[in-house]
Amino acid sequence: MDSHAAYNEHSHQHGHEHGHGHEHGKEHAHGDVKEEHLKEEQEHFRKVIATFASYRVHSHGTNKRKKESYAALSEEHKALIPFYLDRLSQIDEAINKNYSFLKAIVADHQIFVEQEGQEISHLQIQPNKERPAVTEFDMDKLRSTLKQFVRDWSEKGKHEREAAYSPILEELENYYGDVPVDQRGNLRVLVPGAGLGRLAYDICKKGFSCQGNEFSFYMLLASNFILNRAAEVEQFEIFPFVHSQSNALREEHILQSVRIPDVLPSGLPPSSDFSMVAGDFLEVYGAESDSVGTWDCIVTCFFIDTAKNIIQYLETIYNALKKGGVWINLGPLLYHFENTPGEMSIELTLEEVKALATKVGFTIQREAMHESAYTANVQSMLRYTYNCAFFSAIKE
Amino acid sequence: MDSHAAYNEHSHQHGHEHGHGHEHGKEHAHGDVKEEHLKEEQEHFRKVIATFASYRVHSHGTNKRKKESYAALSEEHKALIPFYLDRLSQIDEAINKNYSFLKAIVADHQIFVEQEGQEISHLQIQPNKERPAVTEFDMDKLRSTLKQFVRDWSEKGKHEREAAYSPILEELENYYGDVPVDQRGNLRVLVPGAGLGRLAYDICKKGFSCQGNEFSFYMLLASNFILNRAAEVEQFEIFPFVHSQSNALREEHILQSVRIPDVLPSGLPPSSDFSMVAGDFLEVYGAESDSVGTWDCIVTCFFIDTAKNIIQYLETIYNALKKGGVWINLGPLLYHFENTPGEMSIELTLEEVKALATKVGFTIQREAMHESAYTANVQSMLRYTYNCAFFSAIKE
Repeated sequence: MDSHAAYNEHSHQHGHEHGHGHEHGKEHAHGDVKEEHLKEEQEHFRKVIATFASYRVHSHGTNKRKKESYAALSEEHKALIPFYLDRLSQIDEAINKNYSFLKAIVADHQIFVEQEGQEISHLQIQPNKERPAVTEFDMDKLRSTLKQFVRDWSEKGKHEREAAYSPILEELENYYGDVPVDQRGNLRVLVPGAGLGRLAYDICKKGFSCQGNEFSFYMLLASNFILNRAAEVEQFEIFPFVHSQSNALREEHILQSVRIPDVLPSGLPPSSDFSMVAGDFLEVYGAESDSVGTWDCIVTCFFIDTAKNIIQYLETIYNALKKGGVWINLGPLLYHFENTPGEMSIELTLEEVKALATKVGFTIQREAMHESAYTANVQSMLRYTYNCAFFSAIKE
Repeated sequence: MDSHAAYNEHSHQHGHEHGHGHEHGKEHAHGDVKEEHLKEEQEHFRKVIATFASYRVHSHGTNKRKKESYAALSEEHKALIPFYLDRLSQIDEAINKNYSFLKAIVADHQIFVEQEGQEISHLQIQPNKERPAVTEFDMDKLRSTLKQFVRDWSEKGKHEREAAYSPILEELENYYGDVPVDQRGNLRVLVPGAGLGRLAYDICKKGFSCQGNEFSFYMLLASNFILNRAAEVEQFEIFPFVHSQSNALREEHILQSVRIPDVLPSGLPPSSDFSMVAGDFLEVYGAESDSVGTWDCIVTCFFIDTAKNIIQYLETIYNALKKGGVWINLGPLLYHFENTPGEMSIELTLEEVKALATKVGFTIQREAMHESAYTANVQSMLRYTYNCAFFSAIKE
């Protein structure tokens, strides 16, 4: 067993000609597709790195607009909110601390770059003219990454994990409770859309061998860092809530820091095998991969709605499972590509997804609805609550 | 008493030189400001009308992309979801019905145009080359307007109204319960940000005279229509949930229609006086208006966070009230301009807003938190829940 998660870059080894991943709609020959795919992926990676690199300047810029708003107030109005400028200074400081953390994450990015055989110098986190343009959309993904740390690796995220991960962990016990923990290492569990890896880690903690799969470079960089570089509990301090002053009951809810990780991502049972694999789920585990029929269990948590073609997702899950294997799902159906012009998107209702699962060959065994928040600031006056579909199904 | 709400266009009669409305940051002389302001407002109105006019083509276009996604599926995949194309056709039909309703709303728009003295022919709901470009952002406001009808004027919106409006109506009874209903007509209640007018109507129902104020042309067109043109209960059928297939438990939740209005907006008590006033709150009721010191009660429901400068809002509320007058507030603090570059935005926490109210001269008498949804599809797997601040305060 390796206490550090091993990172494997699968996506380039598994070009999948008819997939609906990057290749959707493209009619090149296989080799061209692969080359273009590789180029796209490298450009995307450069952009993600550039977003990390731009965080401080961008966030200070946003905060500067708030200072300018204050400066435009009359002297009478300024006197009514004397604390305001000081808070904005504290937000600047918190941004600096977040940036230190983000820099540490990216300092480790060579593990990806080296595997891609790129020139590292092109991706240095330094100002340079070649840096790709970073949009508010990109920066929003980075800010979400900070909040994702709260969900997956902080004490504060415990209630979210209990709502979203506990029903899955309990269902694993329902299926495999009769297998002693020290003999579960032979049971291979796959977690597509593993995010920052906590669910996959918690599954390993129960003795299973578990592989997380993730496509987002934001998540991959961040999970690599927390899984392989955290040396002690609560080592890092981040300020995930300083990017908005809206819906706060008190100032401390804006400025509060969160310490991560709440547990050290090592100390897994000797029998278990923990790995994280980078790449598109359909490419890495699709029909042409060596993954077919090899998994005892596939766990999808807030994942199936990332599909462009959910039918292909369900077929891929089905094919990747061994006969008698188990699919456990929990999540909403917020189809990620519904509003993306130029991309395929098929949006089925929950009832239709379950009927489709049956047609694909699954037998649904248990189902329920579970309320769950997602990367929420619990003290906020605005909360997003997902009424999540939970079900488990068997490949007959 | 007039059973129909009277519409008054105040905004042009109350140019307010130092206001932070449209004029924010502009340094023209008063006359120029007024003229530019007028021009801006007319352009904005043309754009809103163009958005109504574009609804069908735009929405069918979005649905066409869904059909193209289906067409791109393999024959095997198509066969697994045989119902899908039929649903998309039903969505097209629902869009047609929504469009008929939206056309009826805009057919009535001359009441605004005539007051502005514009050429009506320029604003006809017909294709023409001069029509302003309509963005996804504009269309989103129009789709929200449809959902706002559910909140304010349907049986289905009852639970939202009970969460958001009932605490306010009860607080009015706490303050004025000893005044017989037939003598409440002398008590003048102002509702800034009145939206589609239901809260103002419910206040009139209790015998008070009530004036709603609204800035958004989407809301003004829609409230004018429902308040003055509805002839019978459940006269109109709209399909507010066909614009997304995400997070639906069953198909019927996407395709369901909602009938409006649940009550006829007439039949108000003879003593009460009901009116709706178009224009910016700060301009219509600001320090230079004839509104100062004339209101018995001001009710702000999901309103104070629309401020660019919330201090000015609180001062305006304070100044507009009579001595001894009551301010009742319910809502979150989702500051509308926090992320709008180039606009002033001051974002205070709830604790700070209440402290500011005290500094401005209010004495807070009661406070509580109330959970409330906002234009939510109750069957959706995603819900936005606001933990709303409720308080009432007296102008000493």
